[in-house]
Amino acid sequence: MPELKPLFEPKSIAIIGASSKTGKTGNIILRGILDHGYRGKVYPINPHEDDIYGLKAYPSIKYVPGTVDLAIIAIPAPVVLGVVEECAEKAVKFGVIISAGFGEASDRGAELERQIVEIAKSRGMRLLGPNSIGIVNSSKNLVITIAPFETWREGTISIIAQTGVFAGAVAHWVMQTQYFGIGKSVSLGNKCDLDEADVLEHLWRDSNTRVVGVYLEGIRDGRKLMNIASNATKQKPVILVKSGRTEAGSKAAASHTGSMSGNDALSDAAFKQCGIIRVENFEEFMDLLKAFDYQPLPKGNRVGILTLSGASGVLATDICTKLGLSIPKLSEETKKRIETTIMPSWQPASNPVDIWIALGNGAELAHKTALNALLEDENVDCVLAILLALSPAAFNIKKVFQKAHEKHPNKPIVVSIIGGKMARQWFKKLEKIRIPAYLTTASPERAAKVLHAMYRYKQYLERSERIITKTSLQDHLTNLNHVTCYHSNNE
Amino acid sequence: MPELKPLFEPKSIAIIGASSKTGKTGNIILRGILDHGYRGKVYPINPHEDDIYGLKAYPSIKYVPGTVDLAIIAIPAPVVLGVVEECAEKAVKFGVIISAGFGEASDRGAELERQIVEIAKSRGMRLLGPNSIGIVNSSKNLVITIAPFETWREGTISIIAQTGVFAGAVAHWVMQTQYFGIGKSVSLGNKCDLDEADVLEHLWRDSNTRVVGVYLEGIRDGRKLMNIASNATKQKPVILVKSGRTEAGSKAAASHTGSMSGNDALSDAAFKQCGIIRVENFEEFMDLLKAFDYQPLPKGNRVGILTLSGASGVLATDICTKLGLSIPKLSEETKKRIETTIMPSWQPASNPVDIWIALGNGAELAHKTALNALLEDENVDCVLAILLALSPAAFNIKKVFQKAHEKHPNKPIVVSIIGGKMARQWFKKLEKIRIPAYLTTASPERAAKVLHAMYRYKQYLERSERIITKTSLQDHLTNLNHVTCYHSNNE
Repeated sequence: MPELKPLFEPKSIAIIGASSKTGKTGNIILRGILDHGYRGKVYPINPHEDDIYGLKAYPSIKYVPGTVDLAIIAIPAPVVLGVVEECAEKAVKFGVIISAGFGEASDRGAELERQIVEIAKSRGMRLLGPNSIGIVNSSKNLVITIAPFETWREGTISIIAQTGVFAGAVAHWVMQTQYFGIGKSVSLGNKCDLDEADVLEHLWRDSNTRVVGVYLEGIRDGRKLMNIASNATKQKPVILVKSGRTEAGSKAAASHTGSMSGNDALSDAAFKQCGIIRVENFEEFMDLLKAFDYQPLPKGNRVGILTLSGASGVLATDICTKLGLSIPKLSEETKKRIETTIMPSWQPASNPVDIWIALGNGAELAHKTALNALLEDENVDCVLAILLALSPAAFNIKKVFQKAHEKHPNKPIVVSIIGGKMARQWFKKLEKIRIPAYLTTASPERAAKVLHAMYRYKQYLERSERIITKTSLQDHLTNLNHVTCYHSNNE
Repeated sequence: MPELKPLFEPKSIAIIGASSKTGKTGNIILRGILDHGYRGKVYPINPHEDDIYGLKAYPSIKYVPGTVDLAIIAIPAPVVLGVVEECAEKAVKFGVIISAGFGEASDRGAELERQIVEIAKSRGMRLLGPNSIGIVNSSKNLVITIAPFETWREGTISIIAQTGVFAGAVAHWVMQTQYFGIGKSVSLGNKCDLDEADVLEHLWRDSNTRVVGVYLEGIRDGRKLMNIASNATKQKPVILVKSGRTEAGSKAAASHTGSMSGNDALSDAAFKQCGIIRVENFEEFMDLLKAFDYQPLPKGNRVGILTLSGASGVLATDICTKLGLSIPKLSEETKKRIETTIMPSWQPASNPVDIWIALGNGAELAHKTALNALLEDENVDCVLAILLALSPAAFNIKKVFQKAHEKHPNKPIVVSIIGGKMARQWFKKLEKIRIPAYLTTASPERAAKVLHAMYRYKQYLERSERIITKTSLQDHLTNLNHVTCYHSNNE
């Protein structure tokens, strides 16, 4: 496997096509590198400019005085081949080809890709793209993207995507409306050389990455990916969206990134086997990424539901049950505690714990009592809390949830919040203390799906461990056998 | 069927349990009625106060001088029976029982409900609730709810819900984060008397209601609902969420609103037969409500996809295909128009129309050309536009979409927007011109499901019409036959 350190932590970058003209791709990329505080050497390459933002510009990479780890290539497709040749001669380690108009556009473009790879490989240069929109490594202030960002929040979620949208609009969504960060983000593009498996291998060993998210349209080398994923998923969860499920979708993928989608059912089985968590859409993808990043895995599938909306409690019960999670009976102690502390005399407690009627005794007491009682119940593995962001239900949400989570750090909590402006404030407060919250119209579905995925992953890890243990035991027995045979032979 | 006009347009309201103490339910309700500018007579009923907010308070409804159309009952459950008796004697037309602690709590509570209904019915008084959180008719400035609202935006969507959440947190979500309005909203609660069918009948004939949304946990009288719904759905779409799909969910529903959920598969078939559009969750519910409210129905299932994200275009193709929508080939004329106006020479146009590469020619030209070309293509029945709210893609979104929609008013447009802060601004601009927009992480699924539901409803209407036409024809033939027989008998 290629050593990707110079790609993620380059000591020097050349931007081929760098420009002082705002709006130009080569301008956006250069400014992004400078604005985010990249600390290595930056070489703008442009035959028509001498100086860009105070940096000396070179007419070609061959005139750059020092070595170049990484070349960003943002020039029209027809001239890319020559430039890659120059880069290869200069012993550039990695090239990121931003330019489009290759395999996704025509057969001629696909042929051009092959030639480019051949030249690069002959000199040991590796390529990302073409049709990539960049690469981010926030721990090194490296933000290379054609979509400008004001700030990029660091984090322990990393993304591999065969498309630009994750370093573009989706990353804007994350940075401007969410509170988690993204450590590394790689836009694979057409994958003429480096593919998802190469990057996954790097992220698997990356101590700054806790969770990996992958978006694919096609798979370059199924066996290679499965091999790496089987190991990676035992260390950290890998969440995947794979499009091209239908024939029409495959055709669309072919004209987007020149991908062949292959048989979707086969892919599905393969993903499952190697522990990849496949989800249907990007919303679920993000929902899971942050939950896995924030919270521990549940020990089992028994969900304690706290709700301020009876309707949402019923819906949560439906969806959990359908997913194969269980809504256990509460212990007598838990019930008694809830009933005597917050409920009117006529209201028995059950799971879901509907605390609407308990608001009369104060919203904070109601939430605190129900949340802690559920977490302390030995019949409950995790808590799904459905909150209504309404003034009669207002309470110190940060204090209550932080204390409860600190007291019970091994039981995951996920929260569904219903409401308007106040809901957004609550969302922020919870996310800041790493409790995953989902703003919904009134549907606990997203939160339930998150718990389900966490439970399934926990099962996968346990199964893998059992298999490993079993294998070790067999090895051990086999060895023992050998020894025995040896002895008997000697006797 | 009951005549519900005095419930929705009462000339006078008594609030039993009205209070000057902030935080009390009877205080929130009274203030809501006054703050939203209700113009009829308001009678606070409270034996311990003489004057509340400048209104004379009465110790009992029997001392109120005039007639009372509507009594809001917000007092503890054990004293409700006596109060309903007084109301009935006073010839109050409708009672809304806010109080909880009835059939949802215990058998004794259920028995109490029966007694209350008996007394009310004997004097011709009708009841909503108990366990209702109120009723809203925005066209009459009538906002009766236990969840305080600053403003309530009027609209042509009306809601029937067997729960409080729609007049509470969900309504806050609508009022504070969305741009559509809600005309009427009824919280049914335990449905001791008035049920979903009664209210649906009223909304069916209500000229201010274009779309009806229904949330149910149980159904009181299946045949009655089906009869009314069969007629209502031929006039306006009825969107439904019904919980209690699973056994566990049914149990939860029983302790929430005392409902019996019944066989879910049977319900499903019945809903389908009478044209009710059942959806899985409240997000889809809201997505559909506003799309049906804003846009015309598509003539067929052929979706033209405009996308700025190749990945989302692929996903949209997948999801549309899976739902049974088709992604037609574009006409030669459409392709040529897109290719010559906005694409680089090497990029052929196909459906999805991926305009990322066309941004070089200006974002406005790219969006305008693709949107209008799709709408004008005779192979396209509706448009799904996937936008990236990024600065390189910024354009006058209001102008482009408004003009295109005005030019092609019969082809629905739905929009999926990906991005951060700018996405919210775009969302507002589109919603203000009644183009349904969905803020998503990067998933076109919501928008695709909306188009699918609209197409299916259109099919339902056409089928109904054919059946009606066929029946009329048969009637005609039968009549003709009779006439013929008559003649032959005479000959």
